[in-house]
Amino acid sequence: MRQSRIGEFALIRRLRNATRVPHAVRSAVLAGIGDDAAVLKIRPGRVLLATTDLLAERVHFDLACTTYRQLGYKAAMANLSDIAAMGGIPRFVLIALALTPRQTPRDVEALYAGVTAACRPAGAAVVGGDTSASRTGLFLSFAVLGEATPSEVLRRSTARAGDHLYVTGTVGDAQAGLEILLARKAGRRGRGTNARDAAYLSGRHQAPTARLREARQLAERHLASAAIDLSDGLAGDIRHICEESEVGCLIDARQLPLSRPLIAYARAGRRDPIAYALGGGEDYELLFTVRPGNVSRVDGLIRRRVLRATPIGRITPARQGLRIIRADGSVRPLTAKGYEHRLG
Amino acid sequence: MRQSRIGEFALIRRLRNATRVPHAVRSAVLAGIGDDAAVLKIRPGRVLLATTDLLAERVHFDLACTTYRQLGYKAAMANLSDIAAMGGIPRFVLIALALTPRQTPRDVEALYAGVTAACRPAGAAVVGGDTSASRTGLFLSFAVLGEATPSEVLRRSTARAGDHLYVTGTVGDAQAGLEILLARKAGRRGRGTNARDAAYLSGRHQAPTARLREARQLAERHLASAAIDLSDGLAGDIRHICEESEVGCLIDARQLPLSRPLIAYARAGRRDPIAYALGGGEDYELLFTVRPGNVSRVDGLIRRRVLRATPIGRITPARQGLRIIRADGSVRPLTAKGYEHRLG
Repeated sequence: MRQSRIGEFALIRRLRNATRVPHAVRSAVLAGIGDDAAVLKIRPGRVLLATTDLLAERVHFDLACTTYRQLGYKAAMANLSDIAAMGGIPRFVLIALALTPRQTPRDVEALYAGVTAACRPAGAAVVGGDTSASRTGLFLSFAVLGEATPSEVLRRSTARAGDHLYVTGTVGDAQAGLEILLARKAGRRGRGTNARDAAYLSGRHQAPTARLREARQLAERHLASAAIDLSDGLAGDIRHICEESEVGCLIDARQLPLSRPLIAYARAGRRDPIAYALGGGEDYELLFTVRPGNVSRVDGLIRRRVLRATPIGRITPARQGLRIIRADGSVRPLTAKGYEHRLG
Repeated sequence: MRQSRIGEFALIRRLRNATRVPHAVRSAVLAGIGDDAAVLKIRPGRVLLATTDLLAERVHFDLACTTYRQLGYKAAMANLSDIAAMGGIPRFVLIALALTPRQTPRDVEALYAGVTAACRPAGAAVVGGDTSASRTGLFLSFAVLGEATPSEVLRRSTARAGDHLYVTGTVGDAQAGLEILLARKAGRRGRGTNARDAAYLSGRHQAPTARLREARQLAERHLASAAIDLSDGLAGDIRHICEESEVGCLIDARQLPLSRPLIAYARAGRRDPIAYALGGGEDYELLFTVRPGNVSRVDGLIRRRVLRATPIGRITPARQGLRIIRADGSVRPLTAKGYEHRLG
């Protein structure tokens, strides 16, 4: 089912150089790219975390809006974020590419360079790859493997009514950034957004940061009772926690952490920034719950700026459903405004 | 970078049922489908094997020639075969699908059923999945994780001059089967091949068998010095061993194991069956090397029918290159007749 490509050997050699295994991971990689499978060591007592994603051109990315390096960087981050949201440490990355005739070896190298740039600071190494042909668009598939101490694993299914709900960083920025990039592609001028704000917001879309450090802080201290990373948008992803944990939630829209550039951008376009915060995807922030007994410790970390997170509501009994306190103080059902995927 | 789909929850529920983790694997799967990542246990003292593949519609498969169940079965087998070729035991499978509007939930279930049918006898479980949309064709991405005792791992890079070369089963059948399927699709009648032979050959293409048992026999007894699975064809895949081990080879075409149906099929079309054996891909047989001191033990296993394999040549010093003894006894360079990929 694989396709031999002319020059595959040469490409593998180039990619091996592009993905030299960092020193910290080297002793765990007994065999990397170039065999039927990678041979890897997991530390004793740790469990293995495994996640996979498949990204399609014109569905998940648009080559008119992203460089190959940015694409590799972001795709890797999205997968590292899944490991973070489980309380784990990402270790090994496998990449399969289906290339069209448009992609040059240089493009593939740039893509790998982006992957490596995302993985290296996280201590993860690219250990496997497969390249084949596509008759249609470019497709990327990632598998990321991580490790975790069993007691530190963060699940979606372990939230309980009464838990407090928090989110790291700010939400909605990536969606605004995507709009700015699409407007630029279409040749439209920004709607009164200054260049610095536009750069911040588009950067949040093109080069998100997986919340690995924050997730580890919570996991090590056993402070989070459940967690998920925000890929589809807050309103969509909270649904996964509620569904898996069989609970409801009450989110206070007035508490949602909004960046100053997002507020300025939304105002300039006469849009509600809260709509971005709830519906915008790809922020890769961490949404987590905390048992009432741990709230003061989490709030202490936030006050001391050890953890950048904001309390945004509560977990409720399932029968109360998913609800939101709106800006005017009224309580309404939280609509399933899952991230409507657009090109970026 | 993911896409929320209407009904994703319902689909996940259905797939969870379709991929119930077998009892033997259950204690190793702490969390499967439905969280950010699967949580898995690797047995103490084992190393982890990891492989990934990306399959594109109209490049790697043709929905006019395969059912969804067959597609899932074969794609899984191709990945199990990679783990087998490393001497390992496959344990965990993650699947990411990019679906077009043509695929119904029933199609996806059939695909998963095929995957499960391939994995269950091998003791492997589907533990993760991701579904997203494709604007073009159907894409499947697999990541398979296996375990091996470190000393039993079979590499491509460890063959030495003087080693004997073996292959399991018969070679070339899958290519003949593909031709039969394509002819049938085009409405052409078989060229004098009887229905039973045609069924055998097309079955070898549609439902290959990964040589898990054979690979384990060799690995446990430390009888193979290097191994690879035949996905691109013998002439193409031997090149990987030679390149990685920095050796040459001398294959005796007269010894290549050919099935009776392949010989009949090739004769009917006035083709050389050896061309199928060398150039035909997707047999998923195991190509392995044996140190001279172990040859009598391997031959003993073959004689006692414990192992179904055939000696086909020798590993030589690198400077002698890759050569073949032809049917007339002449020695020629082995051309890089890597599998020219065709639709199937």
